[in-house]
Amino acid sequence: MRFYSDNTATAAPEILAAIAEANQGHTIAYGDDPWTQRLDEVLGKFFGTRVRAFALATGTAANSLSLATLSPPWGAIYAHEEAHIGVDECGAPQFFTGGAQLVSLPGEHGKLTCETLRAAVDKHPANVHTVQPAVVSLSQATELGTAYRPAELTAISKLARERGLKLHMDGARFANACVFLDCHPGDVTWRAGVDVLSFGATKNGALAAEAVVFFNLELVRDFEFRRKRAGHLLSKSRFVAAQLLAYVETGVWQRNARRANDFARRIGQAAGTALLHPVEANEVFVHLGDERKAQLRNAGFEFYDWGPQTSGEARFVMSWDQREQDVTALAGALA
Amino acid sequence: MRFYSDNTATAAPEILAAIAEANQGHTIAYGDDPWTQRLDEVLGKFFGTRVRAFALATGTAANSLSLATLSPPWGAIYAHEEAHIGVDECGAPQFFTGGAQLVSLPGEHGKLTCETLRAAVDKHPANVHTVQPAVVSLSQATELGTAYRPAELTAISKLARERGLKLHMDGARFANACVFLDCHPGDVTWRAGVDVLSFGATKNGALAAEAVVFFNLELVRDFEFRRKRAGHLLSKSRFVAAQLLAYVETGVWQRNARRANDFARRIGQAAGTALLHPVEANEVFVHLGDERKAQLRNAGFEFYDWGPQTSGEARFVMSWDQREQDVTALAGALA
Amino acid sequence: MRFYSDNTATAAPEILAAIAEANQGHTIAYGDDPWTQRLDEVLGKFFGTRVRAFALATGTAANSLSLATLSPPWGAIYAHEEAHIGVDECGAPQFFTGGAQLVSLPGEHGKLTCETLRAAVDKHPANVHTVQPAVVSLSQATELGTAYRPAELTAISKLARERGLKLHMDGARFANACVFLDCHPGDVTWRAGVDVLSFGATKNGALAAEAVVFFNLELVRDFEFRRKRAGHLLSKSRFVAAQLLAYVETGVWQRNARRANDFARRIGQAAGTALLHPVEANEVFVHLGDERKAQLRNAGFEFYDWGPQTSGEARFVMSWDQREQDVTALAGALA
Amino acid sequence: MRFYSDNTATAAPEILAAIAEANQGHTIAYGDDPWTQRLDEVLGKFFGTRVRAFALATGTAANSLSLATLSPPWGAIYAHEEAHIGVDECGAPQFFTGGAQLVSLPGEHGKLTCETLRAAVDKHPANVHTVQPAVVSLSQATELGTAYRPAELTAISKLARERGLKLHMDGARFANACVFLDCHPGDVTWRAGVDVLSFGATKNGALAAEAVVFFNLELVRDFEFRRKRAGHLLSKSRFVAAQLLAYVETGVWQRNARRANDFARRIGQAAGTALLHPVEANEVFVHLGDERKAQLRNAGFEFYDWGPQTSGEARFVMSWDQREQDVTALAGALA
Repeated sequence: MRFYSDNTATAAPEILAAIAEANQGHTIAYGDDPWTQRLDEVLGKFFGTRVRAFALATGTAANSLSLATLSPPWGAIYAHEEAHIGVDECGAPQFFTGGAQLVSLPGEHGKLTCETLRAAVDKHPANVHTVQPAVVSLSQATELGTAYRPAELTAISKLARERGLKLHMDGARFANACVFLDCHPGDVTWRAGVDVLSFGATKNGALAAEAVVFFNLELVRDFEFRRKRAGHLLSKSRFVAAQLLAYVETGVWQRNARRANDFARRIGQAAGTALLHPVEANEVFVHLGDERKAQLRNAGFEFYDWGPQTSGEARFVMSWDQREQDVTALAGALA
Repeated sequence: MRFYSDNTATAAPEILAAIAEANQGHTIAYGDDPWTQRLDEVLGKFFGTRVRAFALATGTAANSLSLATLSPPWGAIYAHEEAHIGVDECGAPQFFTGGAQLVSLPGEHGKLTCETLRAAVDKHPANVHTVQPAVVSLSQATELGTAYRPAELTAISKLARERGLKLHMDGARFANACVFLDCHPGDVTWRAGVDVLSFGATKNGALAAEAVVFFNLELVRDFEFRRKRAGHLLSKSRFVAAQLLAYVETGVWQRNARRANDFARRIGQAAGTALLHPVEANEVFVHLGDERKAQLRNAGFEFYDWGPQTSGEARFVMSWDQREQDVTALAGALA
Repeated sequence: MRFYSDNTATAAPEILAAIAEANQGHTIAYGDDPWTQRLDEVLGKFFGTRVRAFALATGTAANSLSLATLSPPWGAIYAHEEAHIGVDECGAPQFFTGGAQLVSLPGEHGKLTCETLRAAVDKHPANVHTVQPAVVSLSQATELGTAYRPAELTAISKLARERGLKLHMDGARFANACVFLDCHPGDVTWRAGVDVLSFGATKNGALAAEAVVFFNLELVRDFEFRRKRAGHLLSKSRFVAAQLLAYVETGVWQRNARRANDFARRIGQAAGTALLHPVEANEVFVHLGDERKAQLRNAGFEFYDWGPQTSGEARFVMSWDQREQDVTALAGALA
Repeated sequence: MRFYSDNTATAAPEILAAIAEANQGHTIAYGDDPWTQRLDEVLGKFFGTRVRAFALATGTAANSLSLATLSPPWGAIYAHEEAHIGVDECGAPQFFTGGAQLVSLPGEHGKLTCETLRAAVDKHPANVHTVQPAVVSLSQATELGTAYRPAELTAISKLARERGLKLHMDGARFANACVFLDCHPGDVTWRAGVDVLSFGATKNGALAAEAVVFFNLELVRDFEFRRKRAGHLLSKSRFVAAQLLAYVETGVWQRNARRANDFARRIGQAAGTALLHPVEANEVFVHLGDERKAQLRNAGFEFYDWGPQTSGEARFVMSWDQREQDVTALAGALA
């Protein structure tokens, strides 16, 4: 019974079907195919505004290419200290940006606050001696399974705009946040001031498909050169685009996220006071102690430790294709 | 009737079947799945020696990550002036290596010679003022549709070794060369002194699958850090690995390459004296003149111009899934 | 009366004399001159061990080239949150290393502690998902005018060694620390486990001269390629080397540092309870409040604010050539 | 009797005097000093137009920072195959630009021609697959001791402008070219369409002083961040600025260049038919054969071989401070 991560999951049947359907006849490579050509329109409709969208195979590429487009090599990128870009990507943002400086900020339940952000930006005045404020990067849902409310995002984007910063959102679990908030995808992106979104599908039912979505169209600039140069322009681009189209158009995004979120909520309720953070997406963080963790593992539950070595904390991630019976078993074991 | 490129082709049914088959149950992400874990063994068997193999989604990534592993930022990488790494990758090798210098060398029919290579290496003596000789990169098949014979490769690798250079092979069309030469895959790689191969499957029937294959195991070094950091470690790695396994194990590699090569040979024979280079893979380069090219286009044949604007040259690439009737039509039109 | 920084100071007469003396006849460029050739020997004698030393014109270059030699692009470099490399170099270490990640750590009076260092290194386990622990960088004297004791350095270097980290020291004010500690230069470098030192002379009487000093000779590796490639190999290298030789051989290093330190101690004593950090080099940090700072400025004292905008803090730096009467005046004004 | 290179020479007395004169009192560091502040005005007057000028300590830094400001990482930089930036800087332009591609072009006597440039630019169409045309870099005087005439420069700059390229000039020996052409410094720079000049003084009498001079002021953009980040902003900036001011204001630039050029002309005349290139600056390239070279060396003349190992070619460089008697001796030996 695996609760390691949502990227251990399978791809949804709709996604495989879309790939098979796209596998008909010759088509121009490198993005000039009909599937890729539809991305802007379909994602624009999804978000309720005009967008430029680019298909990619990994979330690290989506994040790093976004950040490299938004920040000069001497830029500062502000993010939560748990952010995937700072913790789990082996320095990819630094590689793609040519050495921008990641500034890690604390914040309860995985969220940045205006206060810490303001203080951090103040440390980088406009002179050549220090890196220059360039980007705020938020994760939605956060790395601790919580979701920024539209008002929280708006407050941060307002501050960002005042200080000349661009706002990037790492949406590896965007669908989970959206479903939890029961809001329109536009409400937590462009309407709240997000400039660029890494829109993830892989963790929620795709094979390997992410999109970088520009709401601020002026910022697209050199994105396509950067993507090509990083080896992230797929020749048979139609197969990534087809996944993204199916993800959005068939409703897989919502159905899968809802299923995973529901599982997580059940587990969160079972965990009770062991819970470390509100369950607002498909992840559950609990303090169990080392003994209890060992018991669960002996009972066949697989999951990652969390926090420092002897913290006694654990993370359970619910995938869209988790078996109902496994979730029920875990809830029972945690209750 | 499209003869633009072999990356306009579909994926072979065996490849899609392998993906579907891999889509069962939860598995550890980021390469610790059973499919990825089999790559070394299966490709080792294919090449007839011990290898380390890494799955990737694009050929540019395969080439660039190989070169970055083999060359320091101040290295010189010697390649033919038509090489994909110098002409078609928007400077990706420079990005991945941290600025290594590509040295473009002439050579008949797309092949490097020992003479030009030796002279070029001589220009970079062992001092801090100049970039330092690091890598020779060959394409097999070449960008002009020819194939290096084992003896040619051995001569170059001998020179490379004498001068302290590593030997990289861009095998985006490796299967086509192998089938043409009717040789064992080991004969034109490790037995001929190749250190690292970019082993392409995408152009020959895969969806998106390439492998970097290390024959010189000591050189693997930091490869995995570089791959992760470049956003090229797929989370659902099983789906790329499964393509590579099927490509090799079902014989798709040979069947598809043979089919495309056969088509090319027919077109080459029809082209007669218009032929610019021997047809030794699945590409045909011809001099037709602008008028003749226009006629062919009017007749429904799609293909790329080649060479300088008014050269009157054209390139026809045969894909594995080219329709027999289209090839027959093209042969007739060219005869 | 300027107390902005020690780099507002003049060059010492011995330094100018050494330049003039080196200005005789033709000599081979790029470091093959007799002055540069003596650096290893003279600095080796100074530090009491075998060294490899390289002359540079700026401290940022010295730090960044050191770090780039010690850390791979995916390395983590641990430093105090006030460290010059993180705060005052516009991201130079990231540029030179190809994107290594700076990890900023807190610590009283500008000093790193083993506890925070250990916890930070623990966050970077040995897998491809995170940057890999590579270097600890300490400043001696620190950015807050304090000096690490030999025992403190030894404790940190022991931890560094256990965790596979190299130890770099930013010695922009190395002479000031040495003079304060009244110790042999070797006691706070190689004997305490330092691998590489940025040995600064510019702030303490040189025109523009810094040396990167390798105590761990195996680490020199690619340093010279990196230096050349960064435009930091001066053609008329003799003029930088001559400064460094004079700095060490004439005793300028000690005389100037002692003078500046003595001034600072007087100011520190005058400041009394306003003092924020022990005065152990040539810098004095005080909390005065905004009103008091304005009064001092009206009285003709020039100095930098310190800390956040309304902190009321100020920094006074004593240069080797500070006028005695100005120091007396400042002491009087602060008392 | 050393004829290796003009960077084996001493610094002119006027330069040392200017440094000594600048060594008075405290002054703000990092370029906010009165000497640095005068650079724009003084160099503007020298060139006869408004400029932005930045002081640096090396020519490699001047070239690389210029190119990094003018070219994106995916840019192509076109230069003569003998250009210093491609041959003698260990890949510095690639390091500073983040991996731009140097395109080496042939051309008689070290000069680029419009024909080869046009053909090279044509190879880089406006799509993401190839690097994008960004900069033409010319050396004046060239690496083979010749000088572009104003009309030649104008023709190249016209072509550059038409194709959207910026024009950079490596003026390590700018004074020598200017004196030979007997023209106003503006005639071979901004009036001929040069956007940015690396204005060298080190080879012609300075200690270590180069300036990047922007004629196209819009292009300055991020230059200052790049310089700082590369460790090339000297803290005691006044000492580099003072050299540049003296170099221009005292007429050292002209006097020294004239002296070196005159020597070269004498040597060139003596060499007669052995001469490989017209002598239009302070360098003389001759074909002597290996035997004759050995004889000269036995007679005490020191110089570098040129070309491939057995070419029998040699380079003699005249420095401003060459002894008259040595030049006479060399002329005698060559006649």
